[in-house]
Amino acid sequence: MTESFYILWTLPARYREEKMKVLVLLSGGVDSSTCLALAKEKYGDNVLALSMSYGQKHAKELAAAQAIADYYHVELLHMDLSKIFAHSKCSLLQGSEESVPHASYAEQLKESKGEPVSTYVPFRNGLFLSAAASIALEYECNEIYYGPHADDAAGNAYPDCSVEFNESMNLAVYLGSGRKVRLVAPFVDKTKKDIVAEGLRLGVPYELTWSCYDGDEKPCHKCGTCIDREAAFAANGVVDPLAEV
Amino acid sequence: MTESFYILWTLPARYREEKMKVLVLLSGGVDSSTCLALAKEKYGDNVLALSMSYGQKHAKELAAAQAIADYYHVELLHMDLSKIFAHSKCSLLQGSEESVPHASYAEQLKESKGEPVSTYVPFRNGLFLSAAASIALEYECNEIYYGPHADDAAGNAYPDCSVEFNESMNLAVYLGSGRKVRLVAPFVDKTKKDIVAEGLRLGVPYELTWSCYDGDEKPCHKCGTCIDREAAFAANGVVDPLAEV
Repeated sequence: MTESFYILWTLPARYREEKMKVLVLLSGGVDSSTCLALAKEKYGDNVLALSMSYGQKHAKELAAAQAIADYYHVELLHMDLSKIFAHSKCSLLQGSEESVPHASYAEQLKESKGEPVSTYVPFRNGLFLSAAASIALEYECNEIYYGPHADDAAGNAYPDCSVEFNESMNLAVYLGSGRKVRLVAPFVDKTKKDIVAEGLRLGVPYELTWSCYDGDEKPCHKCGTCIDREAAFAANGVVDPLAEV
Repeated sequence: MTESFYILWTLPARYREEKMKVLVLLSGGVDSSTCLALAKEKYGDNVLALSMSYGQKHAKELAAAQAIADYYHVELLHMDLSKIFAHSKCSLLQGSEESVPHASYAEQLKESKGEPVSTYVPFRNGLFLSAAASIALEYECNEIYYGPHADDAAGNAYPDCSVEFNESMNLAVYLGSGRKVRLVAPFVDKTKKDIVAEGLRLGVPYELTWSCYDGDEKPCHKCGTCIDREAAFAANGVVDPLAEV
């Protein structure tokens, strides 16, 4: 390597010019919605959002992404990458016969023995970030915000959510884009509890979000992401607006 | 970074087991066809290929990719990512009003003043490699071969062909795939002349390949890639089989 990772964190002041435009990966869940709120606070009108279809079993999170984008008056781009995962056995996807586990991530990790959990979509974040980097160059965005956090990376549950993955992917995007685009993962070393704390400060309309991996009318309150989400609100001393739905 | 780049080059011997399967990014040009020949020499029947539609102005290279895959009795997967580049101004793409420059890369770089050349497709290699990583996990391939080389990276013409990009992308793919997939770029620090030398040794059927950026019946002999290709054969003391077509 001829370049230090430091270049990414010591950009010259001129980089922070007014024209800075930001693209936010928005799934409609707690993490990415809080990311969008942070980007809006920092960059105001210069924010775009991007949501992805990747063959997920339901479209409720896409509707939630649209509701959040509408709330923040942000243009939402949409991309369908589902064909890439057509042969995946991931339990989150339409093509899989496996159902989404009704268990906490801690329990799932005991089962998976250090391998990614069954809801890991093969290199999903890498693919989404690369597609976002292409879009960022086309729309002249300088930064891509996205919402991985330490709880998801813990125990190798989702290896594409780790600090190490984010650092290497950030460098790849920065170098491969001709030093035009970089990644910002504000929560990569934080917990979901921290994210909700930040979101409460920012006034994120969490009642519009959707996290549950099942696509029923109401959240199942049993899948890993329902469990995590409700615990994160509880740890902040508030009730998840979706907890009693 | 908690992990050294070294992990990628010092894999334990058990990694090199017989079941190793390789996915080759195949565009149908000189570089990727030679890559496929190398992978075939090393891994025999355990080789798959993947070609991409990305909105290029012609389909001749896709037909060449199929001809090369057929020659090597390799299954060729195909993916259409063209919508991602729908708003790009890159001169290689259908949506662009700009024509492909009829000039050597050296001349184009003088014009672009250190910026990527007009045929740089925004973060194309990063996107292709990420999509390939998802596919590799689905097909249980451990390595992705692809053909960037030093001539393309020179002067920042194609920043997503550089050694530095390859190293960071390799680490991102390795970590983000749960340490299951890595990139192999056998020519990343070599010239096109070196690639052709290797391909001549391997007996690559270069008459089946296609490089020209224009999609006419015959190569234009004027675009950057025609010029480079013919020079690479000449530097090896042979005539490009397409030079007199």
